[in-house]
Amino acid sequence: MTVLNQDDFFYMTLAIREAEKGRYTTSPNPNVGCVIVKDNQVIGKGFHIQAGGPHAEVHALVAAGENAQGATAYVTLEPCSHTGKTPPCAEALIKAQVAKVVVGMTDPNPQVSGRGIEKLRNAGIQVHQDCLTQECEKLNAGFIKRMVNKLPYVQLKLGSSLDGRTAMSSGESQWITSAKARQDVQDYRAQACAVITGVGTVMADNPSLNVRQAEFKPNHYPCEKLRQPVKVVIDNQHQITPEYKLINQAETVYLVSNKHRNDAENINWPVNVKFLTLSQAGEHVCLTELLTQLALLEINQVWVEAGAKLAGAFIAQGLVDELIIYQAPKLLGENTKGLIEVTDLTKLNQAIEWRYQEVRQVGDDLKLVLFPKLSS
Amino acid sequence: MTVLNQDDFFYMTLAIREAEKGRYTTSPNPNVGCVIVKDNQVIGKGFHIQAGGPHAEVHALVAAGENAQGATAYVTLEPCSHTGKTPPCAEALIKAQVAKVVVGMTDPNPQVSGRGIEKLRNAGIQVHQDCLTQECEKLNAGFIKRMVNKLPYVQLKLGSSLDGRTAMSSGESQWITSAKARQDVQDYRAQACAVITGVGTVMADNPSLNVRQAEFKPNHYPCEKLRQPVKVVIDNQHQITPEYKLINQAETVYLVSNKHRNDAENINWPVNVKFLTLSQAGEHVCLTELLTQLALLEINQVWVEAGAKLAGAFIAQGLVDELIIYQAPKLLGENTKGLIEVTDLTKLNQAIEWRYQEVRQVGDDLKLVLFPKLSS
Repeated sequence: MTVLNQDDFFYMTLAIREAEKGRYTTSPNPNVGCVIVKDNQVIGKGFHIQAGGPHAEVHALVAAGENAQGATAYVTLEPCSHTGKTPPCAEALIKAQVAKVVVGMTDPNPQVSGRGIEKLRNAGIQVHQDCLTQECEKLNAGFIKRMVNKLPYVQLKLGSSLDGRTAMSSGESQWITSAKARQDVQDYRAQACAVITGVGTVMADNPSLNVRQAEFKPNHYPCEKLRQPVKVVIDNQHQITPEYKLINQAETVYLVSNKHRNDAENINWPVNVKFLTLSQAGEHVCLTELLTQLALLEINQVWVEAGAKLAGAFIAQGLVDELIIYQAPKLLGENTKGLIEVTDLTKLNQAIEWRYQEVRQVGDDLKLVLFPKLSS
Repeated sequence: MTVLNQDDFFYMTLAIREAEKGRYTTSPNPNVGCVIVKDNQVIGKGFHIQAGGPHAEVHALVAAGENAQGATAYVTLEPCSHTGKTPPCAEALIKAQVAKVVVGMTDPNPQVSGRGIEKLRNAGIQVHQDCLTQECEKLNAGFIKRMVNKLPYVQLKLGSSLDGRTAMSSGESQWITSAKARQDVQDYRAQACAVITGVGTVMADNPSLNVRQAEFKPNHYPCEKLRQPVKVVIDNQHQITPEYKLINQAETVYLVSNKHRNDAENINWPVNVKFLTLSQAGEHVCLTELLTQLALLEINQVWVEAGAKLAGAFIAQGLVDELIIYQAPKLLGENTKGLIEVTDLTKLNQAIEWRYQEVRQVGDDLKLVLFPKLSS
């Protein structure tokens, strides 16, 4: 059995860099990168740009041409074995007669996982698995979560002062955090399939929740037109009217309630507005049902920008995969609004625990990225 | 004019390392280190250990012996020119016939600043100033503040959750932060001349506020016996009684009030308890008057461990030089106790602003060190 050597890790890293280029555009498909190497030369590389377009392997094979014969292909995700919108990549690699395929991670979809690799091996191609698997998994937190758990990957954004305050008692809150922090938010919105917010935030701030071209400065964007996330507004009491900024744009807006909206047909709603009526009754919408519905709509990753109540509900129900806090070096004192509202906590050992994953300065603020603490 | 070269910076760095060894013991004197160099060899080094004991230069000169003749002395602080508890160091350097003295910073005491350097120059010794001045100043934030502003350097410690909460509504608070964070606190207490707290904290937690030998792990401690900071309890209504832990220890405890305590003589107080009665009347003690009094008692540096009200008062009055926050990756929600109470803030532009100076992980927690934002 041949083991992976340092060249393999190097070329897989290049494939990961390729895959990353698609992070603003590939969903609902995964980010995938491919590098084809012969005699220690990269002879083809590519990444998946958009669903419906060619997969990473096809781009790389086209670039390599006949030279691909006898070469090694590095792919961040197991090549597909089934005909979807495009023909199966495993077959393309077989046809091109590559000698070896190094795979970053197997397909997370339990129904097809391993089949691409099997197909390659049956054709006599050497396959190595598990090269930089963790790094390859990071490319597709959303896609993997949806495939494995039938739920989107949830990122919750919070912005606060050092003492966990978000606004003065007057409601004044724009802007506690710096312009650089708000620019960083643009990058998250651009990667998200959907932005979730609550009716309170919409009525208070009337935000567009769009990616703003002027503030979004990626070092690579593969398409001419900026992709905007769909918007999801939790509006159980049907308070949203067509006047809000968020309604009046090209992208889909879901208005979510567990009650049928009687004026759905009467009011002259723009065509992009859709009504998502959940089945679970109650004062509040069931967030798990909402997320399940979004996964069925092929939403891989959601970005939650919400007030203290909705944020608190996502957290208290254990639905947050990643917490992003922009913390301004200011002190506002107690006579102000708090970061999250979670009820039912009376003892310290009930506190919701996290672990710091990343901490860095963004402008004048600190950006904290936290993951839920694994239960010990 | 000869300029400083890289050797000078190297040896001054060694002198700074020496000076740091005294950080737990030298107050009310400053931390000073000295290195004597001849023919690119360190022939003597030393640091000031304790007030009353020899100064850094004397330790270094004793080590160097007659070899000091013609050598260069690197001293982090201008050698003293006056006879205090020990003879003036400038004269010792002159007597040893060193050829050159490199000085990190001049004496911050405006009444003697520059005199030591003058004395050396008058004796024909070459003197270079301003070598790593900022680094040398960092050794003595407390001493400099007292000399220049007649106030101690104030470090305020806070511990909170991610959402700026310090305790459950029940009051349960031990321990939000980790054991590693509490150990880090020991190092600050050990460096402080005084620990300030409020009567509320004493009555709620009955802390000793001592440096605990078991948790204090410096890589150098120059004395056999651990020096404990004096304790300062703000107790305007005379609620403290002799039973509390903090009272029953060897070190001085100041009970602070702006009212004369009638039972000061009647109750059987231990000898270490002193009553500090301030002149400024009012519901609360005047913190500026308190700090001024502490400076007169030769307190260079204070460490404030207090509840939300007293901490808020120090902050709102602009008396904090350094804010140290241990932030546990937990969320407690709103039905809990907040980090600081500051009244009178109603608009966001009144928020008290800081800048991040240091951010690092301590155990599971994040440690944030902040300085007041310089007004722009």
